[in-house]
Amino acid sequence: MSVEKLRKIVLDHDTKSGRLFDYMIQFLIILSLITFSITTIPDLNELETEILYIFQVTIVSIFTIEYITRIILSKRKLEYIFSFYGIIDLLAILPFYITTSVDLRSIRVFRFLIFFRLFKLLRYSKAIYHFRQAFIIAKEELILFAIATCMLLYITSVGIYYFENEAQPEAFKSIFHSLWWAVSTLTTVGYGDIYPITAGGKIFTFFILMIGLGIVAVPAGLLSSALSQSKNMKTENNSKKVSHHN
Amino acid sequence: MSVEKLRKIVLDHDTKSGRLFDYMIQFLIILSLITFSITTIPDLNELETEILYIFQVTIVSIFTIEYITRIILSKRKLEYIFSFYGIIDLLAILPFYITTSVDLRSIRVFRFLIFFRLFKLLRYSKAIYHFRQAFIIAKEELILFAIATCMLLYITSVGIYYFENEAQPEAFKSIFHSLWWAVSTLTTVGYGDIYPITAGGKIFTFFILMIGLGIVAVPAGLLSSALSQSKNMKTENNSKKVSHHN
Amino acid sequence: MSVEKLRKIVLDHDTKSGRLFDYMIQFLIILSLITFSITTIPDLNELETEILYIFQVTIVSIFTIEYITRIILSKRKLEYIFSFYGIIDLLAILPFYITTSVDLRSIRVFRFLIFFRLFKLLRYSKAIYHFRQAFIIAKEELILFAIATCMLLYITSVGIYYFENEAQPEAFKSIFHSLWWAVSTLTTVGYGDIYPITAGGKIFTFFILMIGLGIVAVPAGLLSSALSQSKNMKTENNSKKVSHHN
Amino acid sequence: MSVEKLRKIVLDHDTKSGRLFDYMIQFLIILSLITFSITTIPDLNELETEILYIFQVTIVSIFTIEYITRIILSKRKLEYIFSFYGIIDLLAILPFYITTSVDLRSIRVFRFLIFFRLFKLLRYSKAIYHFRQAFIIAKEELILFAIATCMLLYITSVGIYYFENEAQPEAFKSIFHSLWWAVSTLTTVGYGDIYPITAGGKIFTFFILMIGLGIVAVPAGLLSSALSQSKNMKTENNSKKVSHHN
Repeated sequence: MSVEKLRKIVLDHDTKSGRLFDYMIQFLIILSLITFSITTIPDLNELETEILYIFQVTIVSIFTIEYITRIILSKRKLEYIFSFYGIIDLLAILPFYITTSVDLRSIRVFRFLIFFRLFKLLRYSKAIYHFRQAFIIAKEELILFAIATCMLLYITSVGIYYFENEAQPEAFKSIFHSLWWAVSTLTTVGYGDIYPITAGGKIFTFFILMIGLGIVAVPAGLLSSALSQSKNMKTENNSKKVSHHN
Repeated sequence: MSVEKLRKIVLDHDTKSGRLFDYMIQFLIILSLITFSITTIPDLNELETEILYIFQVTIVSIFTIEYITRIILSKRKLEYIFSFYGIIDLLAILPFYITTSVDLRSIRVFRFLIFFRLFKLLRYSKAIYHFRQAFIIAKEELILFAIATCMLLYITSVGIYYFENEAQPEAFKSIFHSLWWAVSTLTTVGYGDIYPITAGGKIFTFFILMIGLGIVAVPAGLLSSALSQSKNMKTENNSKKVSHHN
Repeated sequence: MSVEKLRKIVLDHDTKSGRLFDYMIQFLIILSLITFSITTIPDLNELETEILYIFQVTIVSIFTIEYITRIILSKRKLEYIFSFYGIIDLLAILPFYITTSVDLRSIRVFRFLIFFRLFKLLRYSKAIYHFRQAFIIAKEELILFAIATCMLLYITSVGIYYFENEAQPEAFKSIFHSLWWAVSTLTTVGYGDIYPITAGGKIFTFFILMIGLGIVAVPAGLLSSALSQSKNMKTENNSKKVSHHN
Repeated sequence: MSVEKLRKIVLDHDTKSGRLFDYMIQFLIILSLITFSITTIPDLNELETEILYIFQVTIVSIFTIEYITRIILSKRKLEYIFSFYGIIDLLAILPFYITTSVDLRSIRVFRFLIFFRLFKLLRYSKAIYHFRQAFIIAKEELILFAIATCMLLYITSVGIYYFENEAQPEAFKSIFHSLWWAVSTLTTVGYGDIYPITAGGKIFTFFILMIGLGIVAVPAGLLSSALSQSKNMKTENNSKKVSHHN
């Protein structure tokens, strides 16, 4: 197999063989993540553990071959190695080698870095462009709202601490404990593991929620309007090109 | 009654008798769904069960007659049978016949396929056109966000598993158990059956929610803006037609 | 005091005395609602009950005088009596007279109709116009989404019933019990009084939430975009008027 | 150091030394809030308490020097003192002086006013302009929705009180207790500390949520669309300026 042919398969997304290779890699990524998830189930018998291990080794081997092939095929090798996808490709295999070679419990913990494999998927999504564009458009506002949310969370924590600390000294032990309540309340998750019981705390919660709901949910609105803006920009550019040709 | 007259009643939505027929079918659909729901209540006495059964048989009979009539009336019979509404009309009656003729517990379970009757209602909604249009407009972004949500859910599950597994080995038993927590948290449902208790897990939850809220709520924003876009397109088309006439 | 002068106070919103009268009525509405709320607190002592009763009688008397004055002052008496605000003004005082004159427990229950007084407040809000306009603009889509939500709720109820009924026969007793879970889940309230425990039920919940979040949150988006549309229409109309004058 | 040089550091945001000074103040604000939060943790040993106290004194001293310097440097001293930021700068240090000088438990409570320091951060955010602009644009609608939410909350409270009071006399003791449920439900927080158990109460909750979700989530939509409007206005103004120059 000539290098040129291999390049078409591995690097090209538009040839038939290239697309097939892409789908295979995507399938393997998802398969490896599911396999990894299964290994976390307690009380697997020996056979199951062995099968899962073989699966993992096989997939990592393929990813390693893919990584090496990409290095060999790319004309500017160093550029690829230090590019976003180059680092991701390395991080997708490194955790496995480290955690299996070194037999230390403290290092085994890093197996969870396997989630870097997820980012390999980004290579295949064209729609990610709009998403990044939308982020750039709404960046300033998103940062502002992230800061506003943090400020609101802090004020909420301090406030509820003063209202509830005496009545529930265990649940609202410190401002950090109150912060956990503030997060679960302002995001409207509301686990119910901790909630105000004093009249003052409840009234305070009411006012904070009235203000908070109007702030916490805004970023999603900003992102979705930035997305449609980014899409329109593309459409306009295309129609401009068309009208220029006329 | 001539065939032409019957066609006007069953197939036509604009004649008076046609509209009456439509309303009757819609009423029967809703009635049959309520009837079915009542049958799931435990400890019904014999009389009640019997009345409900008679109700069900009557409604299914009417739907069967409707289905057969539609086949007879349509000029291209096979086309109707394999059309979307043809299949729905069949699926609306089939589960009843199968589950009552075969007296097996394992088959009785399929009674729940009765919900196919709901889709019969779609035939009568003109507004569904905008909805489909909006889906087509926002399709690319919706898929992107579905994938992004899945990725976020996976990373969240892996993360919380490593933070909470040791402290709550029962609740966060495996990544699949963590996934359930991730779903109920990122959608802000927050049942409270499972939640982080370690400081690390809580801080992780905070960051994931800050990012997650801005992602999970976007699809609704995309759909609603696509809907107004689809509506404006129609209005523009109409006004263009009007101005062409001038 | 001449009739004309009284008309300026009661019916006119623009004169100084008219505005003062409006504020007084608004203040009394809110006061009466708070008073009513306090009466529901159990274990009030005799003095407190008496004071609250005097408050209520006084406020109802003023509202009665207001109602009679409005009838006397309006030129087309019957038109006012059967107008929206005429009926509201009557309903704001009627429950009190009925529940205090007839000393029956079964009738005392209707005291809660006092909330009709809230609608008296609508008379004073000019911004309600935009709100109504927005509803008219988005009406078709809102109805569609209400129906879609109902269909989704039904399918969710049937589905979870089949997944959870066996494992939790008490919580998911019938489809109606499942419906309660469906409501609290799809609105993301998530009380946590009832939730799936089987793997099948949890996976089902995941898929339903992925679809549901994109549907249940849309009406708010529709309303808010309709509101800004209604506002722009007004601004455009105004600017047109201005440009016509030039 | 000349006064002019000092002015450049303290008041100017664009010089290098000015920016450095700004970052230092911002860092100190956040540090002081974290320090304060740590002091609320119970069971700190003596050494830790002492270190935290030294931290607090140091930071307050720097803020005091900053405040005095700003007064000295500003040309119109009184104007600064009574300006928004002047008052914030004072409130950021005052609580510490009062709560440490007077050794009364009742006064120590006011330590929480430390959160005024958060508002010092606003001085450094340019993006706050858009936020204020968006508030002004959407003000009328936001007030309308705040009122609508309050009305909805009241009606919900009265309704659920009548449905649940008899079945759960402790949880739904009075309309004020019901109001707490209404707040936690309509904001979709849903702690699960209090929820309807009667069929009537559940059906009522269903209808209220169907209406409520479409109202409570609107302000966020209004704010986010007002934000993008405010941004476009700025862009348009800029492009107008550019086209005028041509």
